Amino acid sequence: MTHSGKTPLTATQAAAEIARGALSAEDYTRACLDRISELEPTVHAFIHLDPDHALAQARALDERRSKGQPIGPLHGIPVGIKDIFDTADYKTECGSPLHKGRQPARDCAAVARLRAAGAVIIGKTVTTECAYFHPGATRNPHDLERTPGGSSSGSAAAVAAGMVPLAIGSQTNGSVIRPAAFCGVYGVKPTHGTISRHGALILSKALDHVGVFANTLADTALILEALAGYDENDEDTRPQAPEFRKALAEKPPTPPKLAFVRTPVWDKADSEARTAFENLAKRLGLATVDLPDDYKAAWDDQRVIMATDMTHNFGALVERGGDASSKQLRDLVAEGRQTTALRYLAARDNARRYVAGIGGLLKQYDAILTPSAPGVAPKGNATGNPAFNTLWTLTGLPAVSLPLLKGEGGMPIGVQLVGAAGDDARLLRTANWLVNKLG
Amino acid sequence: MTHSGKTPLTATQAAAEIARGALSAEDYTRACLDRISELEPTVHAFIHLDPDHALAQARALDERRSKGQPIGPLHGIPVGIKDIFDTADYKTECGSPLHKGRQPARDCAAVARLRAAGAVIIGKTVTTECAYFHPGATRNPHDLERTPGGSSSGSAAAVAAGMVPLAIGSQTNGSVIRPAAFCGVYGVKPTHGTISRHGALILSKALDHVGVFANTLADTALILEALAGYDENDEDTRPQAPEFRKALAEKPPTPPKLAFVRTPVWDKADSEARTAFENLAKRLGLATVDLPDDYKAAWDDQRVIMATDMTHNFGALVERGGDASSKQLRDLVAEGRQTTALRYLAARDNARRYVAGIGGLLKQYDAILTPSAPGVAPKGNATGNPAFNTLWTLTGLPAVSLPLLKGEGGMPIGVQLVGAAGDDARLLRTANWLVNKLG
Repeated sequence: MTHSGKTPLTATQAAAEIARGALSAEDYTRACLDRISELEPTVHAFIHLDPDHALAQARALDERRSKGQPIGPLHGIPVGIKDIFDTADYKTECGSPLHKGRQPARDCAAVARLRAAGAVIIGKTVTTECAYFHPGATRNPHDLERTPGGSSSGSAAAVAAGMVPLAIGSQTNGSVIRPAAFCGVYGVKPTHGTISRHGALILSKALDHVGVFANTLADTALILEALAGYDENDEDTRPQAPEFRKALAEKPPTPPKLAFVRTPVWDKADSEARTAFENLAKRLGLATVDLPDDYKAAWDDQRVIMATDMTHNFGALVERGGDASSKQLRDLVAEGRQTTALRYLAARDNARRYVAGIGGLLKQYDAILTPSAPGVAPKGNATGNPAFNTLWTLTGLPAVSLPLLKGEGGMPIGVQLVGAAGDDARLLRTANWLVNKLG
Repeated sequence: MTHSGKTPLTATQAAAEIARGALSAEDYTRACLDRISELEPTVHAFIHLDPDHALAQARALDERRSKGQPIGPLHGIPVGIKDIFDTADYKTECGSPLHKGRQPARDCAAVARLRAAGAVIIGKTVTTECAYFHPGATRNPHDLERTPGGSSSGSAAAVAAGMVPLAIGSQTNGSVIRPAAFCGVYGVKPTHGTISRHGALILSKALDHVGVFANTLADTALILEALAGYDENDEDTRPQAPEFRKALAEKPPTPPKLAFVRTPVWDKADSEARTAFENLAKRLGLATVDLPDDYKAAWDDQRVIMATDMTHNFGALVERGGDASSKQLRDLVAEGRQTTALRYLAARDNARRYVAGIGGLLKQYDAILTPSAPGVAPKGNATGNPAFNTLWTLTGLPAVSLPLLKGEGGMPIGVQLVGAAGDDARLLRTANWLVNKLG
């Protein structure tokens, strides 16, 4: 039995088969449930999953299609939902005893959009505690001794194990790109505000992004297009959603120009990863661009904003709960309580400066190529270091993790591409070009 | 010699005369300069004024017109500019030794718009220190022993003394509506973001508003229309500017419904003002609406945001300058430095709640009627209490002060009307209706 693998059909393939009547939503969902029942006892990707409810959704979708009613682009496709996104049918407990048994009255905006597109909301995936660091039970399908990364642990692992073709997660520091890299799947964190966070656990409006996991870039485009768009309940969303699928079908007019950016945390990468990336940059003939020293404060700035905003949003709840929360989370809340308003405002101002500076670089290059994580998934429970994600979350830029390199024991190493703000569709086109070039 | 009065023609009248060639910009400007040379030795409204430069601008405008070139709606109209707005021709010292001798390279957005509309930038008016509390030399034209109010002291006094038909100021707490009330002129603080603050001294982006002073409502509409509009350098501005003049020319379709709102600071009004407003409400047959206790924290919330943002924006400069700044300003900076990020974020959140609550009230009423200030202008130097302005600044709602009541010694008492966000034009129409009804 292998713990990693792919669903028999990708989401794009299955959606096409279901649309033309060659496959039923029920059969495809059942295939996913079979894989889940086989691997879940060791991978622990799900926290709430009811096979009967999933099959009931699939049968209703089949009935809808058989009646000739219009169907959406995700018709009959099972999607795993990180357990910080409210669902009207499944509990939403945010990986924390503080939310134990919490049953939302309605779907969050992202899940509502998935259902409207015809998705089967198959179940809720394991998140670290409140999408912060304290790990859940999920193991890495490539090596059960290793972490899947966090905080979207279950979503990344479920896709890597072939339990579902698609899953959604969130990133406030490194919670989509890092687990995607550790689990060897495609992960996309689109530009800040591309997907509504309404009805999800809010850590920091300034930093929170909704992201996706899939086993192909085409599948990420399929689900991103269903998710993206304006929501009056999330003031950071924008009217126009990128045309992900159209961009992916295009060939870049000229070969994309990539900058190899090591970032000020390069020394946190392990020697294996450093060598792998230097070789990759050489092979692709990339210019190495080192960011000026001004960017060194970005990691502290992100920490200040995250600690303060999380404490603002649910610090009192954590404090009232006492030992119900991990020491890590309680320490963060204590830190958030100490932050001065001036330090917070300076961090927000600095973030705007980084956006402007990297925006300038991304006028010269189509994308930045940089590690998704410091190396392969580490052994043990700790979810690994998000240092290679922090700057791209703080600046709200779109980022993709591509499973293009291998390290120790055949474990995946993710290649991260970062694009200009709002240029998400072009970033996916550039990523596709790179995958084809190296594949 | 009277210290208060009106320019021989209003701005609206003069602009029409100049446009049809019956009056020259030079003659109108000279009339203003004559009034200034007569009263300035006692009123002290201006800090920078060069009569030759003002006349040179007027002559250039006359020449432009005589050549048949297009002219703007303020062609040949002298305007006083509070000395926190950058001007390329006059120094901008912000009423503080810290900015002594500071000569900007270019006009701020508001002044650039006035020049584009044909205004004569006649000179810079006295501001309190950094538009905060420490007073400048200006006296109230109605009674030289009294304050003109602050922080836009010189602008209000210059219009009240008939030195200029129009002037601009700014409000972060009560700096337009209060001096307008004390000086017995019309003052308008439009909805937050209606007029760009780019190139003005920024105290707090969340609280700063640009406002105007005039001796008639028609004149406020004339200058507001020239000032309002989108500026890419001020992210709070909006694409569509209200049609102030058109609204003012309309009759309300039905008599406007006003709510008499005493606000939680009612006990800060003096007994004379309380009686005057209770009589006015009775005469107009208004319902008295008392805001719930939730609003009591608004004054502290505004203080937290103002202290923090001012310290963020120029606290380090104040600290480096030591005794160059007043104790009041240094104390505010010390307070801003102590504020925690959580208190600041809570204040910002509370402000959004007040906006929602008062927005609900303004669906039932066309406008709120409430005092502009606690009473007539007090004697002495202190610029008076802005308590009756704080809530309307924090919520960013449009406010007008109308010189409709009189108090002790014939001193003016301002009637404040507050409208719904973005409904500035309708608020002016309602104000005009009230002026006509009581006039």
